[in-house]
Amino acid sequence: MIIDCHGHYTTAPAPHQDYRKAQLANFDNPELPSPVSAVISDDEIRESVENNQLKLLRERDADMTIFSPRASAMAHHLGDEKVSQAWTEACNNLIKRVVDLYPDNFIGVCQLPQSPGSSLENSIAELERCVNEMGFIGCNLNPDPSGGHWTAAPLWDKYWYPLFEKMVELDVPAMIHVSGSCNHNFHATGAHYINADTTAFMQFIEADLFKDFPQLRVIIPHGGGAVPYHWGRYRGLADMLGKPLLQDHVMKNVFFDTCVYHQPGIDLLFRVIDVENILFGSEMVGAVRGIDPETGNYFDDTKRYVDALDISAEDKNKVFELNARRVYPRLDASLRARGK
Amino acid sequence: MIIDCHGHYTTAPAPHQDYRKAQLANFDNPELPSPVSAVISDDEIRESVENNQLKLLRERDADMTIFSPRASAMAHHLGDEKVSQAWTEACNNLIKRVVDLYPDNFIGVCQLPQSPGSSLENSIAELERCVNEMGFIGCNLNPDPSGGHWTAAPLWDKYWYPLFEKMVELDVPAMIHVSGSCNHNFHATGAHYINADTTAFMQFIEADLFKDFPQLRVIIPHGGGAVPYHWGRYRGLADMLGKPLLQDHVMKNVFFDTCVYHQPGIDLLFRVIDVENILFGSEMVGAVRGIDPETGNYFDDTKRYVDALDISAEDKNKVFELNARRVYPRLDASLRARGK
Repeated sequence: MIIDCHGHYTTAPAPHQDYRKAQLANFDNPELPSPVSAVISDDEIRESVENNQLKLLRERDADMTIFSPRASAMAHHLGDEKVSQAWTEACNNLIKRVVDLYPDNFIGVCQLPQSPGSSLENSIAELERCVNEMGFIGCNLNPDPSGGHWTAAPLWDKYWYPLFEKMVELDVPAMIHVSGSCNHNFHATGAHYINADTTAFMQFIEADLFKDFPQLRVIIPHGGGAVPYHWGRYRGLADMLGKPLLQDHVMKNVFFDTCVYHQPGIDLLFRVIDVENILFGSEMVGAVRGIDPETGNYFDDTKRYVDALDISAEDKNKVFELNARRVYPRLDASLRARGK
Repeated sequence: MIIDCHGHYTTAPAPHQDYRKAQLANFDNPELPSPVSAVISDDEIRESVENNQLKLLRERDADMTIFSPRASAMAHHLGDEKVSQAWTEACNNLIKRVVDLYPDNFIGVCQLPQSPGSSLENSIAELERCVNEMGFIGCNLNPDPSGGHWTAAPLWDKYWYPLFEKMVELDVPAMIHVSGSCNHNFHATGAHYINADTTAFMQFIEADLFKDFPQLRVIIPHGGGAVPYHWGRYRGLADMLGKPLLQDHVMKNVFFDTCVYHQPGIDLLFRVIDVENILFGSEMVGAVRGIDPETGNYFDDTKRYVDALDISAEDKNKVFELNARRVYPRLDASLRARGK
C-alpha cells in the first residue's frame, strides 16, 4: 500500500476562494457585505480532484493521500483571530467532504486557526473538532503565523505546550508547515517553506522539548529543509550545545517526508536519515508542477525516486506505508477498521 | 595550491571585543566613556592565529585562507550607522594586520558598515578603502542587516545596485553572509546562516539581476544552504517562473563553497553542481568546532571530504585553486605578483 503523507487541496473549487476574498474584503472594510459560505456541489469537488490529485495518484500507482487544506492559503497573517477561525473551519470542512467522497483515497489533516499574537485556544478546539467529530488524523502547525516576519515564539516555548498536550492526548502528529510569505525577501515555496523546515529542526535541537513530550511526533516536510544536506553541521551543533546524539535527542520524534524533487536529493536523504524516520510524500499538486526536462517526468513524482533507490523491499514498505501508520495511529486504526 | 575561500577571524584578541563592548555600552548610554581603539600587539595577533587558523591550515595541508572579520560579530543590527562604521573599520583594519603578518597565508575580504534602513554609501566607501588602500579582494554582504527580522530589500532591489556597480567596477565578488540573529526563532549558525543562503539563491532566481550585472559574482556559503539538496525544486521553480535554465540564469554568477560538514553532503554538492561553480571553503575556526565521532576528524575539515571525491585531479585543482583565482581576480593578481 502506498500512502502519500503530504497532499494539499490546492485545486479547491472557485467558490471556496471567492468566500475567502469576500471575507478579507469585509475585514478590510466592514461596510462591505459579510461573506456568505461557499456553495459547492459534490460534483464540483469530484471534478476538482478527479482531474488533479486523484488522476496523478492513480497514474503514479499510489493509494492514499493524507490530505489537508492548501498550505499557502492558510495565510494566518491575514485578518484576525475570528477571520482565521472562520476560514479554517471552511477549509477543514471542505477536506472532510473530499474524504467522504473518496474514503479510500483521502484522509484528513486539518489546518489550525492560528493568528499572530493569539492564544492557541481556538487551534486546540478546532483540532478536537476535526479529530473527534470528523475523523482527521493530524494537523498542520504553522511555526510562523506572521507569514515571514517570524514574530511568534520558537516551537520549544511554553506558548505551544497546550497544543502539544492536546496532540499527545489525541495521539495525532503535526506537520510543521508555514503558509504564504508577506515578506518580499522570502519566496513562499522557494525560500519560506524550506527555511521554516530548517528553522524548526534547529529549534528542536536547541531545546529539550521531547523530554517534556516523549510521545509528540512532528513531520518536517520538504525532505527536512536543508537538514539532511547539512547533517554533519546539525550533529556538530548538537555536540557544541551539549545535547545528546540526534538519534536520541530529536529523531525519536521528528520525521521527514520525501518532497525532494530530484534523484540525488532523495539518495542523500536515505543515505543519512534512518529509514524509520522517512515518510513518502509528494506534495502534489503543489509548488512545482512542471516536467523535469532532464528526466521527462514530473518533478514532484517522488515515487519514482524512491522506487529507484537501492533499498530492500522491506524498507520501501516502511517508507510507503508502515511509517505513516506508525506516525499517524488514527490512520492505521481507520485502515484496519476497513480491513486494510 | 589550496585556497580556502571562507575563513573568519573568530579568534581576534580580547581587546578587540572589549572595544566593541565599550562602543555598544556608550551607544546605549552616552554618559559612559567613548570607546577607545583597541591596542593589540603583533604578538597577540600572531598568537591568535598561530594556535588556531594557521595551525589548522598547516595540519590540513592548505596554503591560504581568504580571510574576513567574524561574521556573527558584524551585528549590523546593533547600534546605528555610525557605530557600524567605526566597528567595521576596526574589524577590517585588524584583518589587514593579519594579512600583513602572514601575506602567504591570508588575504583580506572586508565587512561592510551596513545598518538597517541606511543607504549603502558608507559600504561603498569602505569597500573602496579596503580594496584600493588595503589590497582586499572582496566583501561580505549581509542580506539581512536587521539580524533575523529581514526588513531590508531583496537582493534584486535597486537599493543594492550602487554597491553592485562598485563591485563590478572594482572587479571584486561578494560572499552573501548574514551575521548573528536577534530573532529567537533563528539559531545563528544552525538556521539563520543556512536560511539566508537559500533565500539569496531564490531571490536570484526570481529576478533578472544578472542581466543587469553580467559581471557580478557572488559566493553563497555553506554549500549554498539548502539549494543543492533541493536542486530539482529550484530547477522546477525557475521553470514555473518562466526563467531560463539555472545554468544560464544564475550559475554564471553564483558560486557555492564546500562548507558542508559531512561526506554525503559534499558528494551531493558535486553530483548536482558544476565543478566550475564550487570553491573550496571550510569556515574554520567557526560554527562547528568539534570532532565527528563517526569519523574521528573535525567536522569542518572539509578538505578530507573533497579529497575523498572520485573526481579528476584537474577538477580538484579547480575547486582548490583555479575557481578562486577566477572568482577573485585580485587574488590571482596578488599571487601572480609573487610568482605564484
